[in-house]
Order: sequence, then C-alpha cells, then structure tokens
Amino acid sequence: MATIDLNSDVGESFGRWSLGDDLAMFGSVSSANVACGFHAGDPSVIRRTCREAAAAGVAIGAHVGYRDLAGFGRRFMDISPTELADDVVYQIGALQALAAVEGARVRYVKPHGGLYNAIVTHTAQAQAVVDAVKSIDPNLPILGLPGSEVLRLAEAAGLRAVTEAFADRAYNPDGTLVSRSQPGAVLEDPEQVAEHVLRMATESAVRAIDGSILTIRAESICVHGDSPGAVAMATAVKSALGDAGVSIGSFL
Amino acid sequence: MATIDLNSDVGESFGRWSLGDDLAMFGSVSSANVACGFHAGDPSVIRRTCREAAAAGVAIGAHVGYRDLAGFGRRFMDISPTELADDVVYQIGALQALAAVEGARVRYVKPHGGLYNAIVTHTAQAQAVVDAVKSIDPNLPILGLPGSEVLRLAEAAGLRAVTEAFADRAYNPDGTLVSRSQPGAVLEDPEQVAEHVLRMATESAVRAIDGSILTIRAESICVHGDSPGAVAMATAVKSALGDAGVSIGSFL
Amino acid sequence: MATIDLNSDVGESFGRWSLGDDLAMFGSVSSANVACGFHAGDPSVIRRTCREAAAAGVAIGAHVGYRDLAGFGRRFMDISPTELADDVVYQIGALQALAAVEGARVRYVKPHGGLYNAIVTHTAQAQAVVDAVKSIDPNLPILGLPGSEVLRLAEAAGLRAVTEAFADRAYNPDGTLVSRSQPGAVLEDPEQVAEHVLRMATESAVRAIDGSILTIRAESICVHGDSPGAVAMATAVKSALGDAGVSIGSFL
Amino acid sequence: MATIDLNSDVGESFGRWSLGDDLAMFGSVSSANVACGFHAGDPSVIRRTCREAAAAGVAIGAHVGYRDLAGFGRRFMDISPTELADDVVYQIGALQALAAVEGARVRYVKPHGGLYNAIVTHTAQAQAVVDAVKSIDPNLPILGLPGSEVLRLAEAAGLRAVTEAFADRAYNPDGTLVSRSQPGAVLEDPEQVAEHVLRMATESAVRAIDGSILTIRAESICVHGDSPGAVAMATAVKSALGDAGVSIGSFL
Repeated sequence: MATIDLNSDVGESFGRWSLGDDLAMFGSVSSANVACGFHAGDPSVIRRTCREAAAAGVAIGAHVGYRDLAGFGRRFMDISPTELADDVVYQIGALQALAAVEGARVRYVKPHGGLYNAIVTHTAQAQAVVDAVKSIDPNLPILGLPGSEVLRLAEAAGLRAVTEAFADRAYNPDGTLVSRSQPGAVLEDPEQVAEHVLRMATESAVRAIDGSILTIRAESICVHGDSPGAVAMATAVKSALGDAGVSIGSFL
Repeated sequence: MATIDLNSDVGESFGRWSLGDDLAMFGSVSSANVACGFHAGDPSVIRRTCREAAAAGVAIGAHVGYRDLAGFGRRFMDISPTELADDVVYQIGALQALAAVEGARVRYVKPHGGLYNAIVTHTAQAQAVVDAVKSIDPNLPILGLPGSEVLRLAEAAGLRAVTEAFADRAYNPDGTLVSRSQPGAVLEDPEQVAEHVLRMATESAVRAIDGSILTIRAESICVHGDSPGAVAMATAVKSALGDAGVSIGSFL
Repeated sequence: MATIDLNSDVGESFGRWSLGDDLAMFGSVSSANVACGFHAGDPSVIRRTCREAAAAGVAIGAHVGYRDLAGFGRRFMDISPTELADDVVYQIGALQALAAVEGARVRYVKPHGGLYNAIVTHTAQAQAVVDAVKSIDPNLPILGLPGSEVLRLAEAAGLRAVTEAFADRAYNPDGTLVSRSQPGAVLEDPEQVAEHVLRMATESAVRAIDGSILTIRAESICVHGDSPGAVAMATAVKSALGDAGVSIGSFL
Repeated sequence: MATIDLNSDVGESFGRWSLGDDLAMFGSVSSANVACGFHAGDPSVIRRTCREAAAAGVAIGAHVGYRDLAGFGRRFMDISPTELADDVVYQIGALQALAAVEGARVRYVKPHGGLYNAIVTHTAQAQAVVDAVKSIDPNLPILGLPGSEVLRLAEAAGLRAVTEAFADRAYNPDGTLVSRSQPGAVLEDPEQVAEHVLRMATESAVRAIDGSILTIRAESICVHGDSPGAVAMATAVKSALGDAGVSIGSFL
C-alpha cells in the first residue's frame, strides 16, 4: 500500500493573535512544520503545538524563518550566511527544548516563507541553512523544492533531502509553480486539490495549468493550514487518498 | 585549598551594539551567565560567547530574562507563570543548541535582571522558573539570592540551589543589598571589591555598610562585566584571591 | 435628544494576523481607539484604520500601550515614568502622521490594557501619561476609568478627562468592575449588553451584578471589537439606543 | 564665505546599549540624522538627541530605516512599497512628536543603511520613500547619493533632493564609492579625511583612490559618528574647514 506524507505549517499564532486551526489539521496530516518564534509562534504557542502534534502522532519539524514578525518571514532579507546559520541553530534549539518538555522531538527542518524561496537559488543562504542543520544533528532531513540549491547542498553535505510538492498550487508545464500574481495560481476547490494530490501520490505526476501532465517526484505534499477553507481541504485530500488506498504517513 | 566560583554576565551585545569585554572577563571568572536573546544577545553573539567560554574553560549558564530588549530585561513584567515557564524553556533550548554546536553545554541557569529580582519574593514566577528548568533537565542548578523564593522552591523540587553574593554591592547589616538609590550602594574601588570578595571566599562574611561584619554563605560571587572598569576589577579580585591561596573554579 | 459616545479598540491586527472587523464596527461606534504599534498595529494596519475611520466619520484616538507585542500590552510593566512618557509621545506622533496622510487627525488618547489598568492607581505612570499627552497637545482629552489616578491628574494638569464605562462588563455594587476571574464578569448576551448600555446612556446608571442599581457617569462607553460576537453586539447596542432616541456621537 | 553642511548619524543608542558620542559630534556638525526606532533609537534616546541637537543649533533629520534592530537596518529587506511607505511615515511622525516636545522640528529625511543603499537603484522602494515624505510634508528635503533613483524621483515629485558625499570613504575614479570589501575603502587618518572634505567643500572635487581628481557636487558631507575615532575626525574636519575659511552650516 502506498504512503504519502502530508505536511502543514502550524504553530503560527502569536500572543493575542490566532492563525489556523492546528488541532483540526492534525487530523489529516503526518508532518507539522512548527514555527520557531522568528516569523511566528511564541513559546507557549509552540509548546502547545508540540503537545498536540505529539498526541496526534504527527512528526514535528522546525519551520525556521527570517527574524521578521511584522512581515511573517515572507520578505527576503539579505542576511549574512553566518548570521543566518546562527539564527537557524537558535530556532531549532528553542523548538527542540519545547518539544522535549512535551515528550517529543524535532524530526526534520523546513525553511519558511521568504527563506524557503530564497534558498531555491541563493547558494550562500542555502549553504548556511545546511550548515546549521548539520551542526545540530546530521540526521535531520531538510524539506525543500525539487531542484533547489538547498536540497542539492543538503545532499552534498550528507543530509537527507526531502522533496516537496504543493497541494493547492498550480504548476507550469516546466514544473515550476505558477506565480501567485497569475490567475489560477492557487487552487481553491477541495475536489480539485484532492485530485491534484492523488495524482502526485499515485502517479508522481501533476496536471499543469495548460492541461499537460508532468512528472513530479515529491516525498511530501504541503497542505496549507492558514486559509479559511484549510481544514475542509485537508479533509477532502485525506478522504480522496483513503478512497484510493493511499495512506498518509511521515516520510521518516 | 579553598575554591570559589566567580560568575559574570556575558553575551550581552546585540547586533551592532557591543557591551562588555567578555573575552577579557573569561580570564578571571569560572562561570559565564550567557544572555539568551530575550533581554540581550543575538544568536551570533551567543554562539561566539559559548565558543570563547568553552575555550577558556568557563562553565556556561543560561541567563534567562523577560522578553524586553528595550528595557534590557530589567523591568518587572507581570507575565503569567505559564508564559514565563515557556519563555524560559525556549531560551534555555536556544542556548543549548548554540553551545552544542560549539562543543559545549549549558551547566546551570541564572535568571537575569528584573526576573532575578522578582523571584526573590514572587512565588508564582519563581515556581515557573523552577518548573521550566526541571522540565528541561533536573540536573541544572539554579543560581539565586540566599533566602530567595526561587532557591527555596528549587530545593523543594529537587534541584540544586546555588547561592550567590555580589562582588561590587554594599550589604546592609541584615544581609540585604543596599538599594542602588542609596549612596555607596555600588563599590567602585577595585581594592575594596577585592577585599569584599576575599572575605566572602575565606570567611563566609562581608563587612556591611555600617562597618559590622555579617555572615554570608555564597557558593558563587557575581562580578559585573559591563561597567568601564569591569575587567580591572575582575583582575584585582583574581589577584587578591590568588595571593590568599584561593583558587577560582566552578561550583559544579 | 441625548447623545452618547461609543468607543472601540481597533487597528489591532499586525502583519499576517487579523483581529476584529474594524470596518463593521465603524458602522456602530463614534470613537476609534487606534493601536499605535507597541502592543498591536503595524504602520499599514494603522494607516488603513485611520482611512476607514475618517471615511466613516469616526473620531480617531491614540490607543497607547506598553511595548509588548507578545503580551498584547496586557501585562503590567514596571517601566520608569520618563521612559513611559517618551514611549507615549512616540506612539502618538506615529499615529498623528499616519492619520494626517489620510486627511485625519488624532482627537484623544486612551491608554490600553495593562497600562490602562495600571494608571487607575499607579500615580507615577499616570502622571507620565498625562505629561506626555500635555507635552504634545494640551487639547487632547484622555479617556479613563471614573475615579482613576490618570483622570485626576489629567484634570489637575488642565487636560480634559473623559470618563468611560464598559458595555459588556458586569459591575460590583460599589461601582468597580467584576474581576474577569469571576463568573458573569463579561456579558455575552447582546440584548443584555444593549440594556446595560441603554441604562448608562439614559439614566447614568447600571444594574450591578447583585441586581442593585448604581449611578455611573460616563461620557463614553467602550464596546469591544475583538470577540467573535463583537459586531452583532455593537449592532444590538446601536439599535437599542436608536429605538430609545439616543444618538451615537463623539464626546468631543 | 563658503559654507558646507556636515551631517552625522546620531540617536543610535538603544536601551542599555550606547553607540557614539552624539553630544561631542554636535560640536562639529550642522545636521543630525536621528534614528527613528526601527533600526536604532528608543524613544528616550531619540528625545534626548533632539534636545541636545536643538540646544546645539544642529538641524534634525529623520534617519528612517528598515524594521530590523538585530541587523541595525543594514540588511536589504524586500519589503513592499506600500509597507515601506507606511513604515517611513510612522517613523517620521514619531520623530516629529519627540522633536516637537523638545521645541524642535524635523527638517529633512535621510534613509539609513540597507534602505539608503537599496534606493540608489531600487525604483519601487525609492518611490515609496518619496511618496511617504511628500505625503507628510512636501517641504522636507531628502538626502541621498548623487545620481541615485531616490533623488531623481524626489525631484520628479517636486521635493528638494540634497546630494551627499562621504568624509571617510574612498572614491573610485568613476565617482562610485570603493566597496568596503576593498583595502583602503574607509579612510582612517583624520588629516586625510580633513583634506578629503576640504577639497569637496572648496573645489567640489575629491582625490580618487587612484590619485586622480574627480568632480563631486555635494551639498552635504556625511561624517560618521559611531567609530572610536569619530569625534577626533570630526574635530579635525571642522578645524581644517575653519582654517580654510569655510563655515559649517545646514544646507537648509
């Protein structure tokens, strides 16, 4: 029986501000990218998220980001590799402690937002992330975009590189994501998203925005958790996978 | 031969801003209270401090504080025990990771500034700190003021409670510190400070501000590192202790 | 025809995080307490809030708070009067500029959260707020609790002191608010809230939690905007006031 | 008699951290670029700086920057033009209020660090700064690099564009600054700096790093205030200008 990992960004509330329904998402996903306090997530939010993820049997990953609360870590920052590596170590360590006091541990690393996008091509920042992860624990896999610098460098450093696809993003025929500034870039129909994911999981393929079918090999599929329809979408995906005999489980 | 621990606050620079000459202080002290990012210390500062402390054979402690960069963690904050405990876990974890990548580890915890002062008497916040430390590692000692709530609760929780005295602070005859708002509260003459410390180390006593001698039992003596004359003072203390045959070494 | 001012906290979103439906609230209230960035509100949120308030004819007030994003300004901070005054000037100035570029201006000041509560009794912090407001513009009224230090000191300084009551909070027979830790402290039934406000507006009285009627003289009534039922509650209040021939209008 | 403006970055301390000797610099310069809290400067620091600048007869400018305390505003941030414009309005407004309560006012705007460098070429961010300044007060000049996008757009918007040169930076023969990564990029000898400035002020020229003389037309010359030798350098510049009969005065 086939198994696919579904990951989702969680722990993104901060103080008075709530974002997403993490607990509901844990009913559908197998991996939790937990914010580490630099772009979102305060220590109490992070700890509660670790507790709930552990209770649901969902693997905890460090969702490390730029130090930019106001921008939610979505804005590229031209930070030096040394500072970036140290920021990443700091975030992972903080999460490790909060997970540990809840009886859990950090199992992988997925960079967030602006950093995620930067290290598709920005070699120096990608290397900094790889260096940071390796220095803490060379057994921690890194999730990233297929073909990205960060995955290439992770493998070169002897780390496990885990490829990721997106449940609700349209793809160009060349395998890149349709830019968010284009119409149709984000899929909003749960059925369409479910079909998208099913094809990824069972055929290692997606239907691109022009209708063509392209090969995509992803060990994990990102399901967004912070939109109004997120839980319904995740539930639809889970249901479609179940109907097709595909189980949801961590890539670990 | 008698041994006494000298501890100093370090890692308190932040980004563009430098504070203290940590490297020079490491020539005189045996314990380094390393800021963890909430009141001072950015990840690169923290990491460098851990590296230098480790190289100098100085024990690393987590100098945890309120989340208040603008106030340097010196202002009391009426934070809930739950949030405080989680903030403390977060800070210790971050420091643990940065120490680990430099081949070192966190050996004790010393609360900072406003938090340090609050938990002399604030039972709920003191308990939160104790809970946090115990949840991470019940082998981590906590440094605090003799007679403080935090040390009482640490012992009650089975943690090691380490008492501390201050090299450059005047004492009242009842053993409390002379308030900083009083004249003579802070000793500024290196010779006087050295004599103060020597009496603490060799006689478990201090000369109070009224000239009387009072008993004070401290396992560690705090030497401030952030004043202009800090290094000269620490050097004078080290020299006086050496002349008296007292060695400087961690309380661990 | 009687007129009463309804005020509401707005502009409390921050970056990725939304809080409250300010635009909907502007359909019911006459005064907008706009967050100034220290406890909530980023510059773009603040500016949009000023634009929408101005378009709706709602008076803009500076909702100044402690510098504590993680705690939403709700935690008491033992900040020095000088620093507090300067923080208040900074916040008001920032809001003034963002209001000005939207063709509006700041008409009053209402301290927020932990600061609001502190200066009911904390004379030094209350004086700091009064000093700050007076130094910027002695024509800016300050909103506060009847009988509070801040209103007493505002009047002593020649500022207008505007008393405030709470639409959804239960009162003790002595006129103080029922503590949030008590059952029944917060009214949740829109009809009950509407009746509460109506009695405040038409009889200068409230029914206390024990059923007794007590006199309360308030020039403005605070309607919370950040709970799930906030808009429905504000609409119910507006409707009840309208039915009773009471118009909603700024205290200015 | 010729007059030249000398400007310096000031108000860059933050809480416990001191940076530069602003008061001493005010003995030599005519324009003070005051940090506004986003990259440096807390409200109390800013207010004191405004008071001292006003007392010294030095013109106050808003030194607006990216929201990045940890990076001191030196790291490029890919912030949207709308957010940047709002951040700039917020910062200028805050400074205006703090200046006003000290009887002074903001006379010009000089972007800081990473933002300063970005808007030499980044049209969208440059336009955002121009829009922000114009929306607050179209009489506020903007300081920038000769030939920069921000000065071109400022002029196009009807704002006064003030060109600036650097007292302690070496120039390439084409008029660009020698990169800090090159040897000799920063001049450290006070006499050499004084000669550099004197030629700028009296001949509208500099000696480039290759020895050639090139024309540079600058209405203001930036003298750094945050290095150890800053005050001595500023004093040497003032003295050399005085000997040559050039007076120091604001460009206003």
